[in-house]
Amino acid sequence: MNKIIECVPNFSEGRDLAKVEKIVDSFRGKEGVKLLDYSSDKDHNRSVVTVIGEPEPLRDAMVEAIGKAVELIDMTKHEGQHPRMGCVDVVPFIPVKNATVEEADALAKEVAKIASEKFGQPFFLYERSATAPHRENLAKVRKGQFEGMAEKMKDPMWKPDFGPDTIHPTGGVTAIGARMPLVAYNINLDTSNLEIAKKIADRVRHIRGGFAYCKAMGVMLEDRNIAQVSMNLTDYTHTAIYTVFETVKMEARRWGVNVVGSEVIGLVPMQALVDCAEYYLGIEDFSIDQVLETRLYD
Amino acid sequence: MNKIIECVPNFSEGRDLAKVEKIVDSFRGKEGVKLLDYSSDKDHNRSVVTVIGEPEPLRDAMVEAIGKAVELIDMTKHEGQHPRMGCVDVVPFIPVKNATVEEADALAKEVAKIASEKFGQPFFLYERSATAPHRENLAKVRKGQFEGMAEKMKDPMWKPDFGPDTIHPTGGVTAIGARMPLVAYNINLDTSNLEIAKKIADRVRHIRGGFAYCKAMGVMLEDRNIAQVSMNLTDYTHTAIYTVFETVKMEARRWGVNVVGSEVIGLVPMQALVDCAEYYLGIEDFSIDQVLETRLYD
Repeated sequence: MNKIIECVPNFSEGRDLAKVEKIVDSFRGKEGVKLLDYSSDKDHNRSVVTVIGEPEPLRDAMVEAIGKAVELIDMTKHEGQHPRMGCVDVVPFIPVKNATVEEADALAKEVAKIASEKFGQPFFLYERSATAPHRENLAKVRKGQFEGMAEKMKDPMWKPDFGPDTIHPTGGVTAIGARMPLVAYNINLDTSNLEIAKKIADRVRHIRGGFAYCKAMGVMLEDRNIAQVSMNLTDYTHTAIYTVFETVKMEARRWGVNVVGSEVIGLVPMQALVDCAEYYLGIEDFSIDQVLETRLYD
Repeated sequence: MNKIIECVPNFSEGRDLAKVEKIVDSFRGKEGVKLLDYSSDKDHNRSVVTVIGEPEPLRDAMVEAIGKAVELIDMTKHEGQHPRMGCVDVVPFIPVKNATVEEADALAKEVAKIASEKFGQPFFLYERSATAPHRENLAKVRKGQFEGMAEKMKDPMWKPDFGPDTIHPTGGVTAIGARMPLVAYNINLDTSNLEIAKKIADRVRHIRGGFAYCKAMGVMLEDRNIAQVSMNLTDYTHTAIYTVFETVKMEARRWGVNVVGSEVIGLVPMQALVDCAEYYLGIEDFSIDQVLETRLYD
């Protein structure tokens, strides 16, 4: 069974589409690598690529793309609305199939090591790859942006994990690391009282004492006139969809409110849904390899 | 999103492995076709191949395999324990991904039409492709086996759907058709009373008034000393896993018995488990395309 890891590199070029194509070409026509999507934003002057692949070919393609970005993008001339600090601004690796976050982490470090040696680009490890707590959050790592980064990196707190101790003169610096796939999951209540949704959100969100991998807030669905607990589950293997669903139902009872349904927004890993089926059906000894689809291409 | 259909042809040769390899070669090295598994049984003198693919390439590969079987296998000399009536005995097509049973049915008919014209092999349509109720069940179609089939086919009730009106002299006759993937699903009870499991099985099995696509029986798990409702769900899109699970729980209450867990045996389509997650979480407006894995190779 092959391992599949997703990578969503952000490049600081969203206007010169010929340059974007040259960079994206790194992910085309390569055995074991599949370009899923890419899009450019002129206001942000930034392009986001979604690519999946087996670890080794994905590593090689990503190193190649970084090389092209260092060659083609000059950060001293870059302007755009989105915060940025490097020609390749951020490179998250996400385990998708038969792969762990540890394997995604190892891949991130390999890419950073090779690309820093080849192209002289420095790298900060962030998210699950971070070497210290203050480096986990991308916003904190990127604070100061390209223009302030040379000064910031003089502080030993901000010595890069790979590459030279200061910015690449035109390439800046890159954040790279592993993270779990996000699950955007919302639960709808049979009340129009937003305060209740907010109180329930506070019970499940990590920052207020809830689940470790749950971000949550209360929002109004104006068109349906109902309140919703809107969540991001940042690691479904530790904070499961069914766990937050059952907990929200339980907390809603406190307010005499019922759950009327839920929504999964965007993509969700198969395992996250299979975990729910396993929980509710009390399935014993199940392996994801029993899911017919996982055998289609291995 | 590509369509994937599975085919599990059974060939009446399980001893001369050189012949088996020649037949199986039809499924190798073909774009859009993937050989998942094959195995030969000497006692049965029979080989079972599991192959998946997109409809057109799968059709062409299957026609090629039938041609080789007609050429290489002589049913007048065939002996083995397993009932059989043709060199290719049975060819089921099963929708696996983004495909319906109607599309599998169309594929079965195309293969039968082309192969009958090319090789003079007659075909009975069976299961979901059957043209009359008495032709749905494979055992009934095959009754009389190769040796009795020429006589049986004189009866207009048993005129083949494609090809000549009698057997191919050495190739016999083949059953071909669409069926849904089977889900083998068992529910464990906290009782050692087998009679209770049998009574519950009678409530859910079709033949006794239960669900249309559910076969069920009560069995003992001797090593755990508990009774089990053991089921085959023959179309999970109409008789869902969660439906039988909830119904068995409900019926168990009648006997003061609890469900302690359940088991999925062998392969299960992703959609069958996603349907369960959707049901229990009350997910609104979900599409299987949101499952990250379905986007891996499209």
